[in-house]
Amino acid sequence: MTSPLRVGIVGASGYGGGELLRLLLQHPKVEVALATSNKFAGKNVRAAHPNLRGVDLTFATHDAAETTDLDALFLAGPHGTSAPKIRAYLKTARRVFDLAADHRLADASQYPRFYEGWTHPDPELLSERVYGIAEFHREKIRSARLVAGAGCIATSAAFALRPLARRGLIDPDHVVVDSKIGSSAAGAEHSPGSHHPERSGAVRPYSPAGHRHTAEIQQETGVKVSLSAHAVELVRGILSTCHVWLKEDLDEKAIWKVFREDYGAEPMVQIVKERSGLYRLPEPKLVIGTNNVAVGFERDPLSKRLVVLSAIDNLVRGTAGAAVQNMNVAFGYPETEGLPRFALHP
Amino acid sequence: MTSPLRVGIVGASGYGGGELLRLLLQHPKVEVALATSNKFAGKNVRAAHPNLRGVDLTFATHDAAETTDLDALFLAGPHGTSAPKIRAYLKTARRVFDLAADHRLADASQYPRFYEGWTHPDPELLSERVYGIAEFHREKIRSARLVAGAGCIATSAAFALRPLARRGLIDPDHVVVDSKIGSSAAGAEHSPGSHHPERSGAVRPYSPAGHRHTAEIQQETGVKVSLSAHAVELVRGILSTCHVWLKEDLDEKAIWKVFREDYGAEPMVQIVKERSGLYRLPEPKLVIGTNNVAVGFERDPLSKRLVVLSAIDNLVRGTAGAAVQNMNVAFGYPETEGLPRFALHP
Amino acid sequence: MTSPLRVGIVGASGYGGGELLRLLLQHPKVEVALATSNKFAGKNVRAAHPNLRGVDLTFATHDAAETTDLDALFLAGPHGTSAPKIRAYLKTARRVFDLAADHRLADASQYPRFYEGWTHPDPELLSERVYGIAEFHREKIRSARLVAGAGCIATSAAFALRPLARRGLIDPDHVVVDSKIGSSAAGAEHSPGSHHPERSGAVRPYSPAGHRHTAEIQQETGVKVSLSAHAVELVRGILSTCHVWLKEDLDEKAIWKVFREDYGAEPMVQIVKERSGLYRLPEPKLVIGTNNVAVGFERDPLSKRLVVLSAIDNLVRGTAGAAVQNMNVAFGYPETEGLPRFALHP
Amino acid sequence: MTSPLRVGIVGASGYGGGELLRLLLQHPKVEVALATSNKFAGKNVRAAHPNLRGVDLTFATHDAAETTDLDALFLAGPHGTSAPKIRAYLKTARRVFDLAADHRLADASQYPRFYEGWTHPDPELLSERVYGIAEFHREKIRSARLVAGAGCIATSAAFALRPLARRGLIDPDHVVVDSKIGSSAAGAEHSPGSHHPERSGAVRPYSPAGHRHTAEIQQETGVKVSLSAHAVELVRGILSTCHVWLKEDLDEKAIWKVFREDYGAEPMVQIVKERSGLYRLPEPKLVIGTNNVAVGFERDPLSKRLVVLSAIDNLVRGTAGAAVQNMNVAFGYPETEGLPRFALHP
Repeated sequence: MTSPLRVGIVGASGYGGGELLRLLLQHPKVEVALATSNKFAGKNVRAAHPNLRGVDLTFATHDAAETTDLDALFLAGPHGTSAPKIRAYLKTARRVFDLAADHRLADASQYPRFYEGWTHPDPELLSERVYGIAEFHREKIRSARLVAGAGCIATSAAFALRPLARRGLIDPDHVVVDSKIGSSAAGAEHSPGSHHPERSGAVRPYSPAGHRHTAEIQQETGVKVSLSAHAVELVRGILSTCHVWLKEDLDEKAIWKVFREDYGAEPMVQIVKERSGLYRLPEPKLVIGTNNVAVGFERDPLSKRLVVLSAIDNLVRGTAGAAVQNMNVAFGYPETEGLPRFALHP
Repeated sequence: MTSPLRVGIVGASGYGGGELLRLLLQHPKVEVALATSNKFAGKNVRAAHPNLRGVDLTFATHDAAETTDLDALFLAGPHGTSAPKIRAYLKTARRVFDLAADHRLADASQYPRFYEGWTHPDPELLSERVYGIAEFHREKIRSARLVAGAGCIATSAAFALRPLARRGLIDPDHVVVDSKIGSSAAGAEHSPGSHHPERSGAVRPYSPAGHRHTAEIQQETGVKVSLSAHAVELVRGILSTCHVWLKEDLDEKAIWKVFREDYGAEPMVQIVKERSGLYRLPEPKLVIGTNNVAVGFERDPLSKRLVVLSAIDNLVRGTAGAAVQNMNVAFGYPETEGLPRFALHP
Repeated sequence: MTSPLRVGIVGASGYGGGELLRLLLQHPKVEVALATSNKFAGKNVRAAHPNLRGVDLTFATHDAAETTDLDALFLAGPHGTSAPKIRAYLKTARRVFDLAADHRLADASQYPRFYEGWTHPDPELLSERVYGIAEFHREKIRSARLVAGAGCIATSAAFALRPLARRGLIDPDHVVVDSKIGSSAAGAEHSPGSHHPERSGAVRPYSPAGHRHTAEIQQETGVKVSLSAHAVELVRGILSTCHVWLKEDLDEKAIWKVFREDYGAEPMVQIVKERSGLYRLPEPKLVIGTNNVAVGFERDPLSKRLVVLSAIDNLVRGTAGAAVQNMNVAFGYPETEGLPRFALHP
Repeated sequence: MTSPLRVGIVGASGYGGGELLRLLLQHPKVEVALATSNKFAGKNVRAAHPNLRGVDLTFATHDAAETTDLDALFLAGPHGTSAPKIRAYLKTARRVFDLAADHRLADASQYPRFYEGWTHPDPELLSERVYGIAEFHREKIRSARLVAGAGCIATSAAFALRPLARRGLIDPDHVVVDSKIGSSAAGAEHSPGSHHPERSGAVRPYSPAGHRHTAEIQQETGVKVSLSAHAVELVRGILSTCHVWLKEDLDEKAIWKVFREDYGAEPMVQIVKERSGLYRLPEPKLVIGTNNVAVGFERDPLSKRLVVLSAIDNLVRGTAGAAVQNMNVAFGYPETEGLPRFALHP
């Protein structure tokens, strides 16, 4: 029996960090050696994560990550906090999994455009890092020192669009991604927009155009994406409804084949397209708490439009779970290790 | 002082009928003379509508509508129940407002296609009836004997698309309407899909393509519409996110002008496009309980896409309130009479 | 025709102030002459109240209330802001309606105990002010210069308990009030506890004992009250479940008689106790947006316990609507004027 | 390595049965050999449980349970279906865990009173069966052939009251249990009361007195219980607020000691009583998906009232999880085996 992986989390007091803790503390091959938070330093992790009551783990300050030898280090702080420190972290940790946006884009020139003028401080590293969706880049993740966690909306949209897009089956100029998202995606800090009386019952088009994740989706699919994001009454979960036009009039069977070729052997991607029942197509409810991606589609009988639907839990598959999956790949563990298989129902 | 209008409602026990009762009972120019329900006949209206406690009104059977002289008769039963009786109703009532789908489409040939083979029994009447959106057909409604209530999703989408479409400003082949809808739109009858543990927290693509209301939207806008409808966690309300591509690269000001020309003088249409605050764009929350339509838009800085948003209360503007507005127009009352101006907040 | 009442609101940017505006702007006998907010001074009221879009009214600063002659002045600021200014307000306004807690308690000695040591600066005024529940103190309100708005939980509990308590029918030492409350009761300011991901789905015992409103309920009922308040998933509404023990084994009919005697003639109190249907007993859902109080009860067949239930909308009957009702009483208008009769359903 | 337990579930298509499947399919020591449902016989379990997509298991008919040798058989059908078959099941299965109400009460004479006249067909068995709360009856469960699953509300209330009650510390005649419950507790069948537009936003006193679980709580605590149950906006979860009066004026420390003595060593009971933070006291949110019971309390500074709070997930600790825990006890496995330790947050 081998000794467990020693892992650490920088920025472990947010929702992404909490979810990493929840998963890693129950992962059979892992020992959580470090969890940092400058705000909660010296306090037990339950101060930030009341669901982790009973865990014997205390927050350290961020700088501890630069002096602690680890097998895997997860960066769960906000955008802009990873890049300046990344060379230091790569010295203390064998593998680094950056959940922030700092290394998602391979092309440094995209950052200022989509991140309000932000310039990447270390573009050289971008050619080396791997985009953290194992189903797309598994081989590279096995040996990557730096894996960039994918954005949550980007993950849901990329899974829906990529099989069709990379085969050149869709009109690349008319791709609408209409996403519906839970409140946890905005993070653990309260704000006017997260005030319950205002957020409750919302169907709020908070980012109707120009969302940052557009860049990632375009990177992973090669098509031009028109993304609109809506906040809906939900804590966890994303549904992305992708409206595309087929170049040729493919029938349902042919489309099935495309998705099955790409995802048929994937243990954590479900092609959901039932003939009956309530849950005939993907829904966030049935993936909450899991690392599963549910993908399905419906042909418009009135036109060449195809509607592709994709549902994930933004904190698991959209953040922490995908990082754990990448860690499993990087260290040669079974890819589903430590990742719950079934959502709750109801 | 003139005597009040004598009005009646056929099929008054459903959610649409209840909403009509709520509005008409408080309308200063109206006396509710008849409310029918075969299921609840002989019982007080509160048996179906617990919010109407204290009202002295008893359900009659449907056939009473064929023998009661009325100024206005509202038909609030399900699709297929109005058409067979409509000639009889037009004899007893001066004006008929049909809230079912039976007279929405001017072109009888569209019915079998969108209503699963249903054939309209009296196509002649379709040329006479008026589509019940007063902002589009006010003059005709003034003198129409039969006004067809618009579908709820159709109403929200048509208000968003019509100003641009009728000016020929948008690509007519790539029009996506992505609608998010509350549970009351499915009616008062319980079903597996309305079971709370299953419906709660849903983001359910229940009609991703081929929705019936597509036909109405196309009729009122002249463009080809790709509609997808999603059930979200909400009892009342619809947000329609309309993704269109502009033929020319119009700037924001030019688009403002288009909407202002069509809606600037309308008391119940709000153009919502703020620079700051939480409610910068239309949201169902802020129209619930009112007959208001909120319309707004955002230009995609990355392409010629324009996102037009439209929010209504499906039971008021989408059903009962629009019918009351049409009644006001038909009888020469102020158009806002009896229609609450402000939604609750929060 | 008489000229409308000139009314003003100090602290009009919170939820209580917004609700007052919504009601007063639609009240047929009222002109809103003043709405103050230091935070929003100079801005249109829609900056704070997005549902009031289209209203031509600008926030003034608070001090304007000391120089504007008004028929009625409503004080809607937080606890502790009314008392220091009250003498000034009583000079400029004929009648003052204080919605804060500053004048709720007749006995000044209760304040330090229930309001964390706060001492009332002007105890003399307490003997003059009237507690603002018209059903209990209608005659005094007619002529009162200063009416103290009742607390929202206190209102719901007092309506449930008072008929039995003032007749001496219940054990005065074992009175449990278990209240369930929506998020709007905590006000318009965001906080960690109002952050949607934390507040959503909550059943949170936020004040299990010692709640401030205990003092008011005891004042109005004369019995010792054990109050526990819970935050539940709801924006508006309160249900108070009052568990009492009857001294004598009264049957249902006898209890009905008690409630009918006190409330049978009240237009805004509903005794809800049905034999069938979903809404057999009071529920917040059916009073939202109205000034109605729903009261009902159930005898425990296993003991002498009686469960009395009471539902209100915390922002209408619990705050703004009760103040409008009191204004109506004070100025001799019909008591229900400007107060919506029916809640939405569903 | 020993071979896994062969287990079966009768009535596996409801919410309790689905939850059992979710837990047992992931239990490392168990093989699910049988799942019955007459309605879904011959279909894959995902027909009833869409979260179990990908599981290779088909529903059998109920009678298969009478002919299949099993180590453990779980009965998850409705009340009244277990008792008539129990002798047959005890022949084919080594241990039977009845989740219905049929064997909860040791005293057969209580059944007609609390179960609308229902008479237990086999009272003899009641003396042998064990009430299925392991923390109360662990030793007996080790060797019991028949373990009766506790009711969900009863479980939450009994954990709150028992430590105080069995020490004689509370007034046994004034014990109020005010419970707030999610919609899943009413089961998988849709009904007028579960229709989303009616159930959403409910704070509904659906059983203000005389609830069946009263009998169980009295059995396990020895005090007379006044129970009221409310449906709140929640799918899963129960909070029971227990209002009791202390005989002596115990301080907080003394009460802590009582709870710590009973629960301090229990891995799945949490005493929750924090000085700060949002989650200072038990809340359903933080136990959803787990078998944990959270218990906490607050002393009323104004009287001898003590408020004891208890939160569980009705489908896990209130049904399926407790049964798995009992199975673990009965077969000598670690008691927490197969039971998730952490809830999701947020």
